[in-house]
Amino acid sequence: MLITDLIVTPIAFADPPLLNSTGVHEPLALRTIVQLVVDGDVVGLGEGSGERVVIDRLKSVRDVVVGQSVFATSAIEALIDETFGGDGGGLSRIERRVVFSIIEVACLDAQGKLLGVPVCDLLGGAVRDAVPYSAYLFYKLDGHPALDGRPPIPDSWGPALDPSGLVAQARLMIDEFGFGSIKLKGGVFPPVEEIAGIRALAEEFPGLPLRIDPNGAWSVATSIQVARDLSGVLEYLEDPTLGLDAMATVAARASMPLATNMCVVSVESFAEGVAKKSVGVVLSDHHYWGGLRHTRELGALCDTFGLAMSMHSNSHLGISLAAMTHVAAATPHLGYACDTHYPWNRSDDVVKPGVLRFVDGAVPVPSGPGLGVELDHDVLERLHRQYVDSGRTTRDDTAYARRLKPGYDPILPRY
Amino acid sequence: MLITDLIVTPIAFADPPLLNSTGVHEPLALRTIVQLVVDGDVVGLGEGSGERVVIDRLKSVRDVVVGQSVFATSAIEALIDETFGGDGGGLSRIERRVVFSIIEVACLDAQGKLLGVPVCDLLGGAVRDAVPYSAYLFYKLDGHPALDGRPPIPDSWGPALDPSGLVAQARLMIDEFGFGSIKLKGGVFPPVEEIAGIRALAEEFPGLPLRIDPNGAWSVATSIQVARDLSGVLEYLEDPTLGLDAMATVAARASMPLATNMCVVSVESFAEGVAKKSVGVVLSDHHYWGGLRHTRELGALCDTFGLAMSMHSNSHLGISLAAMTHVAAATPHLGYACDTHYPWNRSDDVVKPGVLRFVDGAVPVPSGPGLGVELDHDVLERLHRQYVDSGRTTRDDTAYARRLKPGYDPILPRY
Repeated sequence: MLITDLIVTPIAFADPPLLNSTGVHEPLALRTIVQLVVDGDVVGLGEGSGERVVIDRLKSVRDVVVGQSVFATSAIEALIDETFGGDGGGLSRIERRVVFSIIEVACLDAQGKLLGVPVCDLLGGAVRDAVPYSAYLFYKLDGHPALDGRPPIPDSWGPALDPSGLVAQARLMIDEFGFGSIKLKGGVFPPVEEIAGIRALAEEFPGLPLRIDPNGAWSVATSIQVARDLSGVLEYLEDPTLGLDAMATVAARASMPLATNMCVVSVESFAEGVAKKSVGVVLSDHHYWGGLRHTRELGALCDTFGLAMSMHSNSHLGISLAAMTHVAAATPHLGYACDTHYPWNRSDDVVKPGVLRFVDGAVPVPSGPGLGVELDHDVLERLHRQYVDSGRTTRDDTAYARRLKPGYDPILPRY
Repeated sequence: MLITDLIVTPIAFADPPLLNSTGVHEPLALRTIVQLVVDGDVVGLGEGSGERVVIDRLKSVRDVVVGQSVFATSAIEALIDETFGGDGGGLSRIERRVVFSIIEVACLDAQGKLLGVPVCDLLGGAVRDAVPYSAYLFYKLDGHPALDGRPPIPDSWGPALDPSGLVAQARLMIDEFGFGSIKLKGGVFPPVEEIAGIRALAEEFPGLPLRIDPNGAWSVATSIQVARDLSGVLEYLEDPTLGLDAMATVAARASMPLATNMCVVSVESFAEGVAKKSVGVVLSDHHYWGGLRHTRELGALCDTFGLAMSMHSNSHLGISLAAMTHVAAATPHLGYACDTHYPWNRSDDVVKPGVLRFVDGAVPVPSGPGLGVELDHDVLERLHRQYVDSGRTTRDDTAYARRLKPGYDPILPRY
């Protein structure tokens, strides 16, 4: 059961104008789809970052991966480390794991298909039949404005630039998906406005756990003030400020746990984060932690050091959602609803509809072999053409924000 | 693929009179063999402690395990935790994991047999084709003396009560198995004699890495003195003294890393051991760490916190050796030759000969489905009858030592 090919396909898909601390989501989000062929026959699927540098690295390890057993994921990781690590490559372990994670997921999908079992069963089995996700709210523009001769791109979500806009967005999302918790991407407006947004959500959805994530947009002093203002309102406060030391200072004064996908992000930073007591909740993301087995290991790390575990998301499609769902189902220590951008991007999905669905805010673990999802080759072809035609190779929310608002300054901390 | 039966068979097998810090190995060592039946057909094998209390616990979770999917090992662990944890059971996590580990290995063996893949492939694949083990030397008596009307039981190893006896034992073992490193179970004689033993081994086998493990028989002062005397001679010093604090004091003054299977032994003690810098090498043992997946996780824990990893052993037979070999092969971070008692106990093995062999001191990873070993039902029956006839239910090296030498006092630290 040897890997005979690794097909790397960059794609671009529609993304609404979501706001964050560094700018605005561009009209197209980038992603890479990997098809890992085993014995010229079975195909395992992987999905990850669409950054040009990741695509180039995936292509350059093709010859290293081809010929390996599809079960030898640890050996493949070692080969990727050899290729990119040390003096020659000089990539950090997290950069290498970004590449490996896409291939590992594709290997596990192929393994499951070869063996006739779902991926979660290769990870110790599901401890939950469905994985709860949170409603991931964003401040957003009404639509993408006309630019460079391109017509405006409206979307059905409408604008969300104040508390009532957020509440309306949450209502839409909860009505459709049934989410039982809410996360707000903050760091966009002055904290007093975002606090008002959270308070409006708390009032409108009593009992629903709430989180806010300003992506490090706040100073330590501001973070402490927000934590005080929202005491008893938030289940956790995500990355209010940047760096393990600043987070530790805030954590010592906040009544709710701090969560992170920005300061404890790797093998290297975990030990330091533990020593400094920077966070109470680590947000796993299999794309950064090196795949599904390493994500389960992160659960053991968190368990051992008394940290809770949740899950982070970036703009993604169905292959990633399936992988996130399998690993979350198979990770006992994961105790919070996970983040997902899927509601924002699902209309352009590369997987055929039918398997991935939200029931009461949770995605039932796909029961078919492997990840349990099937690639729609027509959509893949369309999204790949869209990628090529766009000429884009990297995500740059700041540059796009400056096109819309000259002089936009993404400096952090902003408030 | 549901579990339909769990057959628990306690056994007793021949064990030579090996000496350690608490006494003498009795003529019979106890162990439990588990046969986990899936769909009334495929049988997965597990092996673990033969203590009566473990056997009783295994039997009492039979009804909880039967009916579960053989892939649902995390759910089974949760059920075992429910059964024995909390106020009702009151067992510690390590006690619960001792029970779970035997069942998890049996599940993985059955999974591999059902899917047609070796267990290591269910753990990320082998990163080494064969797992190096160390020559595990013991001070020992010539044979078991006559007792209670039982005739004496000689063995072919001969006595080892001084440096020349150790060297002779090492020569026998290395000639037969090809081991490339040596571990001495110490804590038996005054440290000056054991230091002389290590020096004799170093002289006789130049270049072979050496370790000594007195199982906490030494005071802090003695440990520091031995570490000084053997500086440059030992690759690591295992459990010279008892407790995380005492070990930390020694570790700060020893030139070689300290290793342990006595003070960092569980999820609970890992974090404290890290904080106190008690050890540099953690000895994994899947029987205590809760099976093969948790042992791989231990690798991630050690990797993250800059600790090395080796493997501990107790008296065991071939099912455990196969499991140890699969998980060691699949754990990239495991960087030392592993411990095994197998040379002392292999003549009474419950697995059919042919698969498990030592080549240049390493066991090639069995390539057959599951663990790759087959149960010899005749031997199992014989060893079970031996267990029943013996009337034994617990291991007690101290009581046996007192039979041989009235007044034997196992108090630690002794030196």
